[in-house]
Amino acid sequence: MQPEIHIDPQRLNQRLVELAQFGALPEGGISRLALTDADKSGRDLFVSWLRDLSLDVRIDQVGNILAFQPGRGDAQPVLLGSHLDTVRAAGPLDGALGVLAGLEVLQTLQELDIHTLRPVALVAFTNEEGARFTTDMMGSRAFCGELPVEDAWDVTDFEGVRVGDELRRIGYSGDFPCGQVTPAAYLELHIEQGPVLYQERVTIGAVEAITGISWQAVTITGAANHAGTTPLDARRDAGLAAAKVIQYLRELAQFLPDQRATCGRLSFSPDVINVIPGQAVLTVDLRNGEDAVLKKAEQQLAEYLAALAEGENVEVTSRILMRVSPSRCDPSVVTWVETAARGLGLTCRRMVSGAGHDAQIMAHTCPTAMIFIPSQNGISHSPAEYSRPKDIEAGANVLLHTVLGLADGGTG
Amino acid sequence: MQPEIHIDPQRLNQRLVELAQFGALPEGGISRLALTDADKSGRDLFVSWLRDLSLDVRIDQVGNILAFQPGRGDAQPVLLGSHLDTVRAAGPLDGALGVLAGLEVLQTLQELDIHTLRPVALVAFTNEEGARFTTDMMGSRAFCGELPVEDAWDVTDFEGVRVGDELRRIGYSGDFPCGQVTPAAYLELHIEQGPVLYQERVTIGAVEAITGISWQAVTITGAANHAGTTPLDARRDAGLAAAKVIQYLRELAQFLPDQRATCGRLSFSPDVINVIPGQAVLTVDLRNGEDAVLKKAEQQLAEYLAALAEGENVEVTSRILMRVSPSRCDPSVVTWVETAARGLGLTCRRMVSGAGHDAQIMAHTCPTAMIFIPSQNGISHSPAEYSRPKDIEAGANVLLHTVLGLADGGTG
Repeated sequence: MQPEIHIDPQRLNQRLVELAQFGALPEGGISRLALTDADKSGRDLFVSWLRDLSLDVRIDQVGNILAFQPGRGDAQPVLLGSHLDTVRAAGPLDGALGVLAGLEVLQTLQELDIHTLRPVALVAFTNEEGARFTTDMMGSRAFCGELPVEDAWDVTDFEGVRVGDELRRIGYSGDFPCGQVTPAAYLELHIEQGPVLYQERVTIGAVEAITGISWQAVTITGAANHAGTTPLDARRDAGLAAAKVIQYLRELAQFLPDQRATCGRLSFSPDVINVIPGQAVLTVDLRNGEDAVLKKAEQQLAEYLAALAEGENVEVTSRILMRVSPSRCDPSVVTWVETAARGLGLTCRRMVSGAGHDAQIMAHTCPTAMIFIPSQNGISHSPAEYSRPKDIEAGANVLLHTVLGLADGGTG
Repeated sequence: MQPEIHIDPQRLNQRLVELAQFGALPEGGISRLALTDADKSGRDLFVSWLRDLSLDVRIDQVGNILAFQPGRGDAQPVLLGSHLDTVRAAGPLDGALGVLAGLEVLQTLQELDIHTLRPVALVAFTNEEGARFTTDMMGSRAFCGELPVEDAWDVTDFEGVRVGDELRRIGYSGDFPCGQVTPAAYLELHIEQGPVLYQERVTIGAVEAITGISWQAVTITGAANHAGTTPLDARRDAGLAAAKVIQYLRELAQFLPDQRATCGRLSFSPDVINVIPGQAVLTVDLRNGEDAVLKKAEQQLAEYLAALAEGENVEVTSRILMRVSPSRCDPSVVTWVETAARGLGLTCRRMVSGAGHDAQIMAHTCPTAMIFIPSQNGISHSPAEYSRPKDIEAGANVLLHTVLGLADGGTG
């Protein structure tokens, strides 16, 4: 490894700032929802940078932007990337960092006249966030063939506007076929969006798995009754039963390895101060990087809910809202990330991504890993999202050196 | 005691049915909110029945309807009564039973030519429910001098309409001074509104205390954060803390004597499935018939909330919304109720009223007791409110015989 090979941190930061003007909110933060005018402007700027480097730019059928830098050989490319769309009131780094650091890697290779054996490709996936069109990771799903292109086009936003129509409107309805490219490997640099690296003062996270997610809605039906006149043994208190579920979720998270379990939404009915709740509806968000553990969490919760129905004399029903299995990263690609980080003298730890990413879809198709850098206070999806310039630089350099390893040696 | 002295159950039921037509809803149930046209019609019918008996009818300054039947002597009267207003979508018995059973007692005394030593008076209090004008037990508060008449007049409903103006509009702005009468005793027959008598198959409840009520709003502030990426030890989960409060309320109710503790309302913020709640607001309804115990419950809850704030790393604030101290009924009047019930061969138990009543205000002014009869399934404030005719008859006869005891013997 040659530490003198490194990206240009000023140029990368300058591009992050320039991109962040599209969708910038007067009160701070960025809203660059997929396929809006702001997204189009950001895409146009990104494509202009790609063309400045004379890269072979292709727009595929769902608007993914691809750029190819030829290798010495004709093998499958190493693909870098992430997404340019954001949630509402987001920060400047989620998605954009992975795309623009990839661009910086390509430019650095050009400038240093480094010609890798494999081609190196860059992608900006369409609609990772799902904030406007609620099928998240849409671009990577279509790229991998998991989501038929026609289905992607037919997804509508809350006003009924179709993805296909918006792609045409903003000029990103391309003809490069989804499924045409199977990368030799996929690498995604991203902010952690959690506090682990920040709190442990570790610079690089080598992501070895991306969490599986199980969402369900639990409805508890008891009996609304007078808070003053109803004795304890006559109560069928749906609110108390819901409270017990919330406490049980914490226990699940404590006793299963690396388990997350969260109740984010809860509503009571009739929701009156002197009436025992007759109904409670709550949501459950279960996450684990190991599918066997995630399934165990789901099963143990189901058993708990059945016992609760009996014990509290309530009816409990549960409905799955969404389920994504965990993705394992490729062990050899993860090792290349670690090797790159250590070669650059950076602290590094293995970790599981608790958030979903395009990489978890890509992992179904090709050897994949992610590189995380610290998020200040673990905050993201917020105007307060921030990572230090030196960590951004470190992450981009790890991406560069992992590419060098993979494109010249690894992943045969 | 002379069991052959009894009320006319058919006449009482007929009057309950006739009164229930005012405010009757097409879908079932009754809405006869205070000082509405429906309330006026019900009052007019009631006053016509009073005049049929040639009683001395007075309307006081807050619209309480009073009727006096002279005694052999000139002592303070024994007062019977309740209220004619209802909540929205109520049943036919809450309030109306106590007023019309009192009327039945007066008519029975007249027909049997029974002249008690003390006068017997009957009252229909204005706005007990507080469903339209939110100062509940308004008529009894003004009657006892606890609420200045002018303050009562100035109370407005949600549309800004004043009590004083509505009293004039419906013809019940009287000139009989509040505070003019101090009864020798006050008796109120009422449905239990809870399941105790119904479940235990006991006909008569001799109410020895009316619950004190303490309402507070508890606000818990933690930190909203990502449900997937935030480790357990970094969470400041306001939802989990709220769940613990709800469970603690049940513990309070289990370990303090005759304590009730209920969380009826709860809301999370931001209330998003994959975000740890940053804030939770919940309401607490504490009730006890013993003020010392109610205060202990309030104090123990406050200590719990302080410990919770520490343990869960959240901020907890609490705000009192309403507090009414418990009222003790008069032991000798309660004994008269029990004596009357047993003399009539009825099962009877002492109990605490978990709901508020005019009697809890009257208890501040004169020896007071309440007579409860079973509510089917404990339901009230609902079109499904129901008590069996034989229980209604039993309750009215206990009222009659308690009056005979008090007006001829007790409460010097």
